[in-house]
Amino acid sequence: MSERFVVVGGDAAGLSAAAKARRAVVVLERGEWVSFGACGIPYYVKGELAHLDDLQVSSPERLVDTYGLDLRRRHAVTAVDPEARRVTVDAGDETYDLAYGDLLLATGGHGATLDVPGADLDGVFTVRSLDEGRALREYLRPGSSTRPGVPTPPTDRFREHLDEVESVAVVGANKIGLELVEAFDARGLDVHVVDDGTHVFDRGPLTLPPFGPAAAGTVEERLRDHGVGLHLDSRVERFVGEGGAVTAVETDRGRLPVDAVLLDEGVEPNAELAAEAGIELGETGAVATDDYGRTSAPNVYAAGDCAEKRHQMLDEPVHLPLGLAANRGGRAVGATVTGTPTRVGPVVGTVVMKIFDLEVACSGVLDPETAREAGFDPVVETISTISRAHYYPGGSRIVVEMSADAADGRLLGAGLVGEEGCAHRVNAVATALHTELTVGELADLDLGYSPPFGPVWDPVLTAAKAVDGDLE
Amino acid sequence: MSERFVVVGGDAAGLSAAAKARRAVVVLERGEWVSFGACGIPYYVKGELAHLDDLQVSSPERLVDTYGLDLRRRHAVTAVDPEARRVTVDAGDETYDLAYGDLLLATGGHGATLDVPGADLDGVFTVRSLDEGRALREYLRPGSSTRPGVPTPPTDRFREHLDEVESVAVVGANKIGLELVEAFDARGLDVHVVDDGTHVFDRGPLTLPPFGPAAAGTVEERLRDHGVGLHLDSRVERFVGEGGAVTAVETDRGRLPVDAVLLDEGVEPNAELAAEAGIELGETGAVATDDYGRTSAPNVYAAGDCAEKRHQMLDEPVHLPLGLAANRGGRAVGATVTGTPTRVGPVVGTVVMKIFDLEVACSGVLDPETAREAGFDPVVETISTISRAHYYPGGSRIVVEMSADAADGRLLGAGLVGEEGCAHRVNAVATALHTELTVGELADLDLGYSPPFGPVWDPVLTAAKAVDGDLE
Repeated sequence: MSERFVVVGGDAAGLSAAAKARRAVVVLERGEWVSFGACGIPYYVKGELAHLDDLQVSSPERLVDTYGLDLRRRHAVTAVDPEARRVTVDAGDETYDLAYGDLLLATGGHGATLDVPGADLDGVFTVRSLDEGRALREYLRPGSSTRPGVPTPPTDRFREHLDEVESVAVVGANKIGLELVEAFDARGLDVHVVDDGTHVFDRGPLTLPPFGPAAAGTVEERLRDHGVGLHLDSRVERFVGEGGAVTAVETDRGRLPVDAVLLDEGVEPNAELAAEAGIELGETGAVATDDYGRTSAPNVYAAGDCAEKRHQMLDEPVHLPLGLAANRGGRAVGATVTGTPTRVGPVVGTVVMKIFDLEVACSGVLDPETAREAGFDPVVETISTISRAHYYPGGSRIVVEMSADAADGRLLGAGLVGEEGCAHRVNAVATALHTELTVGELADLDLGYSPPFGPVWDPVLTAAKAVDGDLE
Repeated sequence: MSERFVVVGGDAAGLSAAAKARRAVVVLERGEWVSFGACGIPYYVKGELAHLDDLQVSSPERLVDTYGLDLRRRHAVTAVDPEARRVTVDAGDETYDLAYGDLLLATGGHGATLDVPGADLDGVFTVRSLDEGRALREYLRPGSSTRPGVPTPPTDRFREHLDEVESVAVVGANKIGLELVEAFDARGLDVHVVDDGTHVFDRGPLTLPPFGPAAAGTVEERLRDHGVGLHLDSRVERFVGEGGAVTAVETDRGRLPVDAVLLDEGVEPNAELAAEAGIELGETGAVATDDYGRTSAPNVYAAGDCAEKRHQMLDEPVHLPLGLAANRGGRAVGATVTGTPTRVGPVVGTVVMKIFDLEVACSGVLDPETAREAGFDPVVETISTISRAHYYPGGSRIVVEMSADAADGRLLGAGLVGEEGCAHRVNAVATALHTELTVGELADLDLGYSPPFGPVWDPVLTAAKAVDGDLE
């Protein structure tokens, strides 16, 4: 029997597992890129970094040198045979079978599209892979994604009829979509956000936890301040095209002429390979796994965006395609297949993002309906406080929304929004969620205080005191 | 029997208790100021805020209006009679006795001085109260602390012989001393730091937890970059004066001519009132209290800088004079005397400060010797990572030092230093300390990740993984 550890997918989960495993490892990546930071795509589109390969965390050469990996790019796994412990690999000019002792499926996810006419028009993008990021940037400004000696990407040929992209619609007001709003704005585009929800972030918990109405309101105001057109409560009915390229978004409220569309309708797991092999998928559509990342097939693991995670508050599998969770999952599987059984660990749904000059962060379950479905009786409070001591120059407002269970005061979640001091503060909330603190206990923590960085009662403490006060 | 709740001291602990208590409250404050942010004094000295009363959190009028307090300023309590449940008050033009049902001693602390010749010279300052802050600023630049209609403080009269203050020595490289270095530098002074330790922050845990050698080294380098003269391993033998004012610091290594001296030899508790009333003091010299802030005398509580706190790691009383702990302690006592017994809660020693453009933060016990004395077997790791994703512009280095117990992996403490992202990150460490996580558990938390704010593995997680790796 082969002792080989075969990893399908060469990004966060796959390479974390490969780096942690102390045995013969083969990594099979169907594409060109390995070890890339997909979360950086908005900043590449914005132009904060010049070249796509700036996003690469480790070069293929370095991965081979450092970890002794057998790293095979442009090798697509087309089938898994769990009975025979064997995968079939399409390497372009050859097809071969490879036996495994243990197998990790780290096949990632892809941007969901919309099932409406015109969704396949040129100029309608989803962005999850680097190639998609490059195609988007190239569409916005031809030639901007190339470097000397690198051929122009094929998307460019579609654009002969367009003089210039001047406007863009982000359809789906979720994480990467709103991050890209800033990128489009920085490129001088006229930006619109179209969403069928009443507020931004209205997306349900299985794709992304909502940041709460206070954060949503602050973000919406900031978008408007930047001249972004907000089209909420608007359902997209079709995309209108001309010469094969998109020219307008048509919603139930009217027609919005735009030169490009970015779809952010969530991330779908790349789970076909597993499904075709008879491996069980969960209700979310992602590969079902246990606490150790094991699938329903013996010696087959799944981690990263293709796999479900257990949500600590909801105590059920969710599909939360986030970078750290992918790294954590892969690392745990790498340890497990090396003989140290290691739990993947639950998620609490910590999400942090930057939208213009706002830091937006949340962790846990803030949405009352989701909390009630999970058996909680949520009490929510919203407080507004200051990011620095009142007398220290340069401070701004921080809004914190926090939820606890009325039954026992257990912290359920919090969202923070402000111009500074939110992105890292949420980590105290995440730690408190993992350790199942009550808001009373949270309010009593000895957190840091220094006038340039906050008021004496940290905003998290002030919010916890407010919720705790409601429970008394 | 009186139902009156009498509070001695009108700052953090005293007013937190008074605001929380739902009964008749009398607050007796010996000075002029109430509800002031003493932690802001360095920024007042620097000139970031123009007027001393900008530091005031709530005006006396507002306190009276909001909480219905009987607030008596310039009323000094000169004696406590726990048998008779009565305090003696010196109100200047009258002296009176006041009966209490419960009493809170929130008398604060004062800057320790040095027992060497010349310590009483003019121009040698400790800074703990607003009046001391004003005197220091006035000494540096006469007239700078006054506003129209307010008389010049008396210190000014000593300065007739001095043309201008051009240089200053900070004696004691601790928190407020190093915060004031930035203030002095901003005022164009030639700044020196004199300390008998090998490094800055060498002060023991009973005044302030050391930030660890990595943070100390980074801070020392930054001080030197700003042209600050660092005189370590230097014991002050005396202060030299001329015409009653200091003109030099004499150490065992030589004479340093300066125009002013700021002593930061720690904070001593104002515990005389308690001691004279026969109330027990702890080994630290501060008032001994139980988990509810109760002293050895019935119905007498103590909170804030005059009282001991229980340190969760060390499991023994310490004297940590920090703002949040004072507020927490006062608030708990206010609840307790209102009929809801509330624990003061332990401290974990979270300290945050800004030194020039550095954020320096620590929580827990980082010093191996202190950890060993408390029965731990500390393993310490230092990692250096980045404050933003590697491709995101504007990032800088973050150094994290972390300690765990070799026996069971329990997190003991961490220190962080860097130009951004340290001040709030320490709160996750503090939360993990309170909940007694192991470094393995800490490494597995679902913390936030977003490229503008950090790498995918948060620096705290990376440090926890490093320490955890040592334990395997």
